[in-house]
Amino acid sequence: MASNNTASLPKSFSMNGGNGSYSYSNNSTVQRIASMTAEAMIEEVIGDSLDIEKFSTPLNTLRIADLGCSVGPNTYIAMQYIIGAIEKKCISKGLSRSQLPDFQVFFNDQPTNDFNTLFTFIPPEKQYFVAAVPGSFHGQLFPKFSIYIVYSSFAFHWLSEVPKEVLIKHSPAWNKGRIFYNSASKEVAEAYASQFAKDIDSILKARAKEIIRGGMMISLLIAVPDGYDNSKIGVGLLYDALGSSLLDMAHEGLINADLVDTFNVPMYVTCPKEMERLIKNNDCFSIERLKLLEYESDVDGPLDTRKHVIHIRAALECMITAHFGNEIIDELFDRLDQKATVYRHLDASYRKGHLLFLALKRQ
Amino acid sequence: MASNNTASLPKSFSMNGGNGSYSYSNNSTVQRIASMTAEAMIEEVIGDSLDIEKFSTPLNTLRIADLGCSVGPNTYIAMQYIIGAIEKKCISKGLSRSQLPDFQVFFNDQPTNDFNTLFTFIPPEKQYFVAAVPGSFHGQLFPKFSIYIVYSSFAFHWLSEVPKEVLIKHSPAWNKGRIFYNSASKEVAEAYASQFAKDIDSILKARAKEIIRGGMMISLLIAVPDGYDNSKIGVGLLYDALGSSLLDMAHEGLINADLVDTFNVPMYVTCPKEMERLIKNNDCFSIERLKLLEYESDVDGPLDTRKHVIHIRAALECMITAHFGNEIIDELFDRLDQKATVYRHLDASYRKGHLLFLALKRQ
Repeated sequence: MASNNTASLPKSFSMNGGNGSYSYSNNSTVQRIASMTAEAMIEEVIGDSLDIEKFSTPLNTLRIADLGCSVGPNTYIAMQYIIGAIEKKCISKGLSRSQLPDFQVFFNDQPTNDFNTLFTFIPPEKQYFVAAVPGSFHGQLFPKFSIYIVYSSFAFHWLSEVPKEVLIKHSPAWNKGRIFYNSASKEVAEAYASQFAKDIDSILKARAKEIIRGGMMISLLIAVPDGYDNSKIGVGLLYDALGSSLLDMAHEGLINADLVDTFNVPMYVTCPKEMERLIKNNDCFSIERLKLLEYESDVDGPLDTRKHVIHIRAALECMITAHFGNEIIDELFDRLDQKATVYRHLDASYRKGHLLFLALKRQ
Repeated sequence: MASNNTASLPKSFSMNGGNGSYSYSNNSTVQRIASMTAEAMIEEVIGDSLDIEKFSTPLNTLRIADLGCSVGPNTYIAMQYIIGAIEKKCISKGLSRSQLPDFQVFFNDQPTNDFNTLFTFIPPEKQYFVAAVPGSFHGQLFPKFSIYIVYSSFAFHWLSEVPKEVLIKHSPAWNKGRIFYNSASKEVAEAYASQFAKDIDSILKARAKEIIRGGMMISLLIAVPDGYDNSKIGVGLLYDALGSSLLDMAHEGLINADLVDTFNVPMYVTCPKEMERLIKNNDCFSIERLKLLEYESDVDGPLDTRKHVIHIRAALECMITAHFGNEIIDELFDRLDQKATVYRHLDASYRKGHLLFLALKRQ
């Protein structure tokens, strides 16, 4: 019997807004470190691959978009890197400073994103025109061939929806008693992978419409090395602990057990080979870079689990509240804090953070 | 002695956000009626004057901006008119539906505007790409020559700041005990007029950079007929009543009297001759239309003062709160409600609402 509970999980959600202790703006340090790791690579790949010769001359406006920008301030730092790299490239091609185009930057996220907070972080010294674009990056967001560089960081791992199969009672992919695919059955993992493939396909098709020929798409994605054991991934262990906290609360009658069965985190952690295959399925982009980066994260000494719990709260609170109501939030994350000690057992070889750096060029 | 109290009045403010009783979104009916009055004129002037022949062929994207869009939903209705009129013009010039450009609409207002609420009103059936641009329309907001039509409704009557002279103690233009220029000395009225002239100049200079040659600027402004007596204007009578309520509260020790002296409403009501002169001072635009429209507003029967008081609250609450604190708001508007009966004495000949319809073309 098909469950129609998909509808109970919001398809569109966003990071915690505002400036509070659990806000995304105050809990996105990992993202910042990761972006800084990628800074030199962004400059290099723009220098090597951005086809400014293909653009109309004189180029009046060069439009850049950050998809899934959240509430800042990381997005402003990233946009500054990218503009700096493009200016360097233009100047190396013989343009003078006065011949540089105007830059217009489009900050995109779901309509429910806290854009009001995002605007409070606009750097006063910015040298570009700001615009915000509300909407899902799984669809077309910009006029055809109007964007020169699309950037996206820590965004494409969010699925557009929970795969329907994992919500169908008694089907082989039913994910009863779990909220993520990492330690679930092969069928659940396949349902997640298939949803990710569909989403990447729609993301690439939409970008192929928007990005001008010679323009680029640069992305940073949460990823793991090829051949990694899903059940040992750090974020998966934390989601297991979160799922287990929800089940405990259901057993104690604090929440409805059916709600736990219909809650799944719509996120997927890819690996380089899988991503390469998905990009090649779409025929509009050449792969200029596809490289797994490692960054240090609690490699020595005890793991700071509290930090990771707060980070998960900043990312998932809106989604959990929409599903279970907001009364359970503090209790749930207190319990997760206790259970998160499982994370301390993370294999030493799984302690490094990984990030897939991806640079594509529109053919 | 120069007062430095200018700093105590915010230079940037916005309409009441959200959806509550005093929100702008629920109190902008006058604006909607006025825009509907202008609908046919918008279609006509776009048909007559928009120089689509001057635009590059094929035209991929046609960009439109609404300056001072507030929180909707009026802005979406206006944008739909404009796009409909452009499509009609394009088709009359022989373009087929499939040759029509993509439309991208930029919704602009101060960074403190409630863009989150604005986005909740996005019409699901819209046929254009949405972007929001935070910033003051007294400065450049868009890349050079990137905008085809700028629209603005009920926005340019807001001054960028209170004229400094009216805050200088014992100067001829000191506006002691009043909050508006309508029943004040000639010097106060001149200071307001001079600030308006400076603001229109900076608005036109910024638009001259942004609007492509052949593109247009269409505006609806609060205005009065040439030769009107300022002291009899309805909005002025209401501001007098508001100022008098503030003074009463100061006399009763509920607010600081100095704060009343440093509070002035940064708004100006122009007339056709003045506007024509200001546009001609800037050499970049031809005047395609400059026409005073009349619309019915409580012409017969008793005036509904409560409606006008709520409307003023939606527009001024943010500004008053920033100056006096939010504790006084309910009390202040209760008093205004009582005093607003003065508005019932409005001359019959001053009861009609007026609106200046302005259409300029970038030369």
